[in-house]
Amino acid sequence: MPTAGLLVIGNEILSGKVVDTNSPYLAKELRALGVDLVRILTIADEVDLIAAETRAMSEAYDFVFTSGGIGPTHDDLTMDGIAKAFGRKVVLSEAIVARIERAQGKPANESQRKMGLIPEGALLMDAGDLWFPVVVVENVHIFPGIPELLQKKFLSIRERFRGQPFLLKRVYVKMRESDIAPSLNELLVEFPDLLLGSYPRIGERDYHVLLTLESRDEAYLGRALEGLLARLPAEGIHKVE
Amino acid sequence: MPTAGLLVIGNEILSGKVVDTNSPYLAKELRALGVDLVRILTIADEVDLIAAETRAMSEAYDFVFTSGGIGPTHDDLTMDGIAKAFGRKVVLSEAIVARIERAQGKPANESQRKMGLIPEGALLMDAGDLWFPVVVVENVHIFPGIPELLQKKFLSIRERFRGQPFLLKRVYVKMRESDIAPSLNELLVEFPDLLLGSYPRIGERDYHVLLTLESRDEAYLGRALEGLLARLPAEGIHKVE
Repeated sequence: MPTAGLLVIGNEILSGKVVDTNSPYLAKELRALGVDLVRILTIADEVDLIAAETRAMSEAYDFVFTSGGIGPTHDDLTMDGIAKAFGRKVVLSEAIVARIERAQGKPANESQRKMGLIPEGALLMDAGDLWFPVVVVENVHIFPGIPELLQKKFLSIRERFRGQPFLLKRVYVKMRESDIAPSLNELLVEFPDLLLGSYPRIGERDYHVLLTLESRDEAYLGRALEGLLARLPAEGIHKVE
Repeated sequence: MPTAGLLVIGNEILSGKVVDTNSPYLAKELRALGVDLVRILTIADEVDLIAAETRAMSEAYDFVFTSGGIGPTHDDLTMDGIAKAFGRKVVLSEAIVARIERAQGKPANESQRKMGLIPEGALLMDAGDLWFPVVVVENVHIFPGIPELLQKKFLSIRERFRGQPFLLKRVYVKMRESDIAPSLNELLVEFPDLLLGSYPRIGERDYHVLLTLESRDEAYLGRALEGLLARLPAEGIHKVE
């Protein structure tokens, strides 16, 4: 199963001014693709920090995704940081400038030309009909922080990352987590490869705990689900989906 | 300004099954308190990983907050990880068990007793009317992943983290620094917690020395200012601001 790290770059997230919706989005997408997201890290807009963390993630995981810090203003330092991570210069991509000019039918201004500055030797990944391609350096895929743009770009290239996806069953349980914990431990002894999650919920009317059962093997997952349901009283189950 | 790191522990976040609302909540709260949140890191429920990242954050920041991985089930490994971070054992807190039993009016079961397992020597921070206290090890504050509980616990102790800004008074003095130095020394004997700065200025028409008085305590600062003015002749003061 391919692994991934996600580097979220932005003071606005750390200072609570903007809620990071990109991480939940990518976490869900990567899971559905069968990619194991191992780490999500949010850091400030600082070149040396971006460089160090990008480097570490690039060595540790198959894929790295960054979000944020792309654009024409003074605090957009992601391209500089990622270039530094790999000891590269930042250079003007005439291909990006040409795309911008083709899209708007007039010459790029100074700010737009700054958006053409990317790490030397970066790959421009054609992203469908987008005028701005996904910039890729080694295994690092650079996405903007604006959720609509990130999503559009990600969807255009996501098949590139597909592994063998996990299958998921959800069991909504009316009992307390502390009452079912022994049954869950027994289940894991019988099904050691099962990925079992147990999430207490407050404020739900119909259930107290959401259990998630996951496996890549459909038959194994089916047997584990049967094993779970056999261990809990039928009246303790709200629903299975 | 105090600094903080936030460690989010949970496979359910990385796998996209649960959206992390705790990070945005804490980011906003910490900002309002005057705490500089420097890093948010989301990792899986693995003891060694929790230990290593907790240790690193504990050394790097004034405060560390963890969310998730607290509870009676197999995947709740935060207490083990944080104990390991500081080379401590996990021990049963009879105080926590007693609180649970008092709250429910009956003996704790096996799973509930598991919730009393905390790092040896941990501080139990009384969190208002909550039956389960906030567990604190060194500078690491351990919060549950359930947003309603995390928020209730955080609100009950947040004043502890408030970054108290320094208050500043400036006194512009017409006398020479060498003439007022004895008075300044006397002042510091009377107000040992005062931060006092003395800056001779050349070329200013109206004064020769700028004095800065700083304290986090407004009343203390007021008394220190009075003490200073009482020690200097009125005609020697250009202005106070």
